[in-house]
Amino acid sequence: MSQDSEYSEGDLRNTGMSLKHDREWDYELDRIVEAVEERDATKVGLQFPEGLKRRGPRVADDIRELVPDDVTVMLSGQPCYGACDLDTFLMKRTDVFVHFGHSPMKNTDKVIYVPLFSNVDVFPIMEESLDELADPEDDPHVGLVTTAQHMNRFEEMKSWLDERGYEVHTRRGDDRLTHEGQVLGCNYASADIDADQVLYVGGGKFHPLGLAMEHPDKNVVIADPVNNVVTVADTEKFLKQRYASVHKAMDAEKWGVIFCTKIGQGRWEQAQEILDDNENAYLITMDEVTPDRLRNFDMDAFVNTGCPRITTDDGPQFHKPMLTPGEYEIAVGNKPLDELSFDTFHGTW
Amino acid sequence: MSQDSEYSEGDLRNTGMSLKHDREWDYELDRIVEAVEERDATKVGLQFPEGLKRRGPRVADDIRELVPDDVTVMLSGQPCYGACDLDTFLMKRTDVFVHFGHSPMKNTDKVIYVPLFSNVDVFPIMEESLDELADPEDDPHVGLVTTAQHMNRFEEMKSWLDERGYEVHTRRGDDRLTHEGQVLGCNYASADIDADQVLYVGGGKFHPLGLAMEHPDKNVVIADPVNNVVTVADTEKFLKQRYASVHKAMDAEKWGVIFCTKIGQGRWEQAQEILDDNENAYLITMDEVTPDRLRNFDMDAFVNTGCPRITTDDGPQFHKPMLTPGEYEIAVGNKPLDELSFDTFHGTW
Repeated sequence: MSQDSEYSEGDLRNTGMSLKHDREWDYELDRIVEAVEERDATKVGLQFPEGLKRRGPRVADDIRELVPDDVTVMLSGQPCYGACDLDTFLMKRTDVFVHFGHSPMKNTDKVIYVPLFSNVDVFPIMEESLDELADPEDDPHVGLVTTAQHMNRFEEMKSWLDERGYEVHTRRGDDRLTHEGQVLGCNYASADIDADQVLYVGGGKFHPLGLAMEHPDKNVVIADPVNNVVTVADTEKFLKQRYASVHKAMDAEKWGVIFCTKIGQGRWEQAQEILDDNENAYLITMDEVTPDRLRNFDMDAFVNTGCPRITTDDGPQFHKPMLTPGEYEIAVGNKPLDELSFDTFHGTW
Repeated sequence: MSQDSEYSEGDLRNTGMSLKHDREWDYELDRIVEAVEERDATKVGLQFPEGLKRRGPRVADDIRELVPDDVTVMLSGQPCYGACDLDTFLMKRTDVFVHFGHSPMKNTDKVIYVPLFSNVDVFPIMEESLDELADPEDDPHVGLVTTAQHMNRFEEMKSWLDERGYEVHTRRGDDRLTHEGQVLGCNYASADIDADQVLYVGGGKFHPLGLAMEHPDKNVVIADPVNNVVTVADTEKFLKQRYASVHKAMDAEKWGVIFCTKIGQGRWEQAQEILDDNENAYLITMDEVTPDRLRNFDMDAFVNTGCPRITTDDGPQFHKPMLTPGEYEIAVGNKPLDELSFDTFHGTW
């Protein structure tokens, strides 16, 4: 795979939001300026995902041109990899708060969500992906999923497959997802469709890997227009890594139970259950879950009730085994080894 | 200097809170348990500085033994290097919130502050420091300052110097400081005393360096009982680094103005002034100011209105020049080069 070598495996920045291709975006300045006028705003907050943060100053410039002089435009410097990384501090302290590039996890008047769609042409790589999909004469049923940034072409993708003889199955997932066919790193409910194969169109391999873990009975074909490569999701290496972590954690005495304080990531009941069940478990609260922050805690293993992508994709970077709540149950012997599954989130907040 | 080699220069963990010597602490469990009873608390939050985080689980165990079963004890996993790193999320969501190891920056009923005093014997190293202080027959006047963790021995230190013929000058600084003779990394008002020499008793060299920068007319002798070494604060290397950063930033077009959202670090007027004065300045808000978080912003230089220790001690780790507000004024030509001074904080919040 022609992965960007600057980003190591397990790096969440490697999500297709990095600017490998020149793109043009519509920042929906009209909507923002209108909100400033309507609310007599003096403070405007802008939040961009990591890969697009460098666009922030240009967007701020454009907004400053269009609004009164007394309006202060603020850029969020908090890490942002998804819709649950909402900068609630900035949101609460600005009159108009704009979150770019992710679709709402929950509709709220407090946030203006501006999607930033990729303008990469997805069809050449979809053409190549046909080699990995079953011939429509043998099996015409195919599921189609993509990420927020390619959502604007979703209907075209469906038609494109339809024209080639496929019966395309799509659905909107659960409340956590805005669009039909959309997947998140923590939610693949949109792939709960009646087909043995699913085509994922999008950058990176972490989303389709989660998808394949969540739907182990389906063949997951990855058409990646960002890295221009077609692959089939292979969960074997991923499973080996997870089993290795679980095995290492089986000897753990002291457990750190991480409760993530980010909006949309708090699973209090799950954390509380573990604490109630294990007197050597200690609740640790934090927003960003990073190796640095955990290094000073004298624990033998961690279980993360927050973002499963941190646990699995960044897992090897932590100094002690880092498990999902389901993996914890296996490690402490409450569940058999073969119940290892992917950790997903289904609610909003 | 026998610095702990694990910590690089500029590492804020190198503050004497790292456990080089065995120490015993009084966690004031009685006060905590009493507050739990009084408030019928079901949630108790504990926050420790980085170097003491590994003590957290043991303290949590002890508290759990002493309170009803339905009380959940939570450990803050947020980075903590000072009193302004208060975990306000945890504070707001727990009935009893305890901050260990730092003295209050502002008195509030919401927080139980538990000092954790060092039990390192300071007098052997003070004995050695006499070589660097003027003979009391020549100049008996000496200022005495220390950090929160040695505060319990402050009166003894004064007597000790007094017995050796010195006239010891001490004062409580401003509102930001709790104790007479106490210094913070961002505040040296307690050294505003009528003496040409100041003895700093404490770990690390960053505090006394700030002290020497803030009081350039005074000889600052460092008696470091943690690393067991006596030195005289030398601002030359520090100044060279700062001037190098200022010079590099002189060519900057695009400036990132950092507004730190941590309690006690927000200097809104200073940020606003820079924005008003410079149309190529962009306001960036964040809690932790780290090299990683700034890397994705396409700026030529940064000015940090938050913690001056991040700016100066961690400065070289940022990919672009990082200046204090005063240094910014020099870099853009509003002030002459020789006005470079140390950035300090004087209010509470």
